[in-house]
Amino acid sequence: MVRRMSVKPTVLKLGGSVITDKEKPLTPNLKAIERLAGEISRAKVSPLILVHGGGSFGHPIAERYDIAGGYADPSQILGFSQTHLAMTLLNSWVMEALISHNIAAVEVHPSSCAVTKAGRIANMELEPLKKMLKLGFVPVLYGDAVLDSEKGFAILSGDQLVSSLAIALGASRIIMGADVDGLYTADPKADSSAQLISHLTLEELKSLKHRIEGSKATDVTGGMLGKMHEVKLAIENDIETVIVNATKPLRVYKALKGEKVTGTIIEKG
Amino acid sequence: MVRRMSVKPTVLKLGGSVITDKEKPLTPNLKAIERLAGEISRAKVSPLILVHGGGSFGHPIAERYDIAGGYADPSQILGFSQTHLAMTLLNSWVMEALISHNIAAVEVHPSSCAVTKAGRIANMELEPLKKMLKLGFVPVLYGDAVLDSEKGFAILSGDQLVSSLAIALGASRIIMGADVDGLYTADPKADSSAQLISHLTLEELKSLKHRIEGSKATDVTGGMLGKMHEVKLAIENDIETVIVNATKPLRVYKALKGEKVTGTIIEKG
Repeated sequence: MVRRMSVKPTVLKLGGSVITDKEKPLTPNLKAIERLAGEISRAKVSPLILVHGGGSFGHPIAERYDIAGGYADPSQILGFSQTHLAMTLLNSWVMEALISHNIAAVEVHPSSCAVTKAGRIANMELEPLKKMLKLGFVPVLYGDAVLDSEKGFAILSGDQLVSSLAIALGASRIIMGADVDGLYTADPKADSSAQLISHLTLEELKSLKHRIEGSKATDVTGGMLGKMHEVKLAIENDIETVIVNATKPLRVYKALKGEKVTGTIIEKG
Repeated sequence: MVRRMSVKPTVLKLGGSVITDKEKPLTPNLKAIERLAGEISRAKVSPLILVHGGGSFGHPIAERYDIAGGYADPSQILGFSQTHLAMTLLNSWVMEALISHNIAAVEVHPSSCAVTKAGRIANMELEPLKKMLKLGFVPVLYGDAVLDSEKGFAILSGDQLVSSLAIALGASRIIMGADVDGLYTADPKADSSAQLISHLTLEELKSLKHRIEGSKATDVTGGMLGKMHEVKLAIENDIETVIVNATKPLRVYKALKGEKVTGTIIEKG
């Protein structure tokens, strides 16, 4: 059996707002998915783990049934099934694109192998995923509705998965493919004087925290602040994190290749 | 949190030849899937676990790349991804039908939570599945391409899953939804004197073994003999098994309800 995992894995997140049309329910952004599959294929980074968000697939149904709030009423049970089904539909668009670009991708469904406790990963079976990496597969995970030992069920965000997997597997880098260029000194959509921060330390990130509060996108897993909160845990473990704009061509490719790219690098410092 | 698993679960297998057109690659039998989802919904059996086969989705690609033979060549890696993708496509047809019939179904992907050793389940994370059953969900599994600790990868058949889950979860009954009425004294497709056996013991099954060899359907997981071999393990654990023809209306419904139905009952005896 081949053992290729001599180097540390890279974890790439593709935001839900990048791969779906956030304004239209259950609408994949097939152009973006196709382009990103091409960039990932060309970059040939191995070992690689991919995590994607839910965008307009998971969030609206999850909110309608308050899946994130946990089990309170039997009527939510079917809502959980519908939320998860929607996420698997989005995932299948991503998988088809990756495999058609000759990437040996295999999805790993969080609801099949992980249980949370009050929304935090308490128990996650990683043996299949580790074996995939060793053989050269690209495991693909996504934010999912999962079973929870305290609340019955919960939403396990793609960002929590990114951070948790990066730590558990000793990743070298996290690449966050977002719908913005990176972290700004202020909200660039509301403040024209906002400037992109190309590099910052964990300490600087913490002091920036209050400035990036109030991200407006509806997101049951939290907005940009939530993302930073999760990623912080990985950075504390000395895993360099790069935020790039995955809606713009070649940003993800360059980040994967380790080339100079517009974005924000966050290091433990 | 609701605890509904006071009674032992029923495990229902839907054969790949029932839910796909075995002659046409990647073609679901949507009429059969829709009808069976309706029968399962009306029967309202709980707790229930569903397992389905691959039919014309998984088998042709799995054979082309010899996934069952294990890892021998890097070119198989993409073939594994394609095999698994095909199975998830079939599974999504099944899930959509179940959920549209108001069944709170959630798929549990074997490749995400199980590792085999030389083709036999060596390690399978069952916590998410057990929690699903307790909340009233219907977990749905399927024959899948999985990682293997000896061979790199392997095919984990739906029938091995049926038997293994039934034993691990202390199931009361297994219902095998096949494309034949049950077990015959000879091959009914080749021998007009073949008679349906309505009831037999494990000992009688063993003595029948040589007569049912030579099932002709192409099946990387073994034909009818393979199915009997797997089911035997559950029957040895005192789990009653009923084989019914799932291509015929109401057979699965009646079996689920415990009503009198054409088929073969096999008991430990």
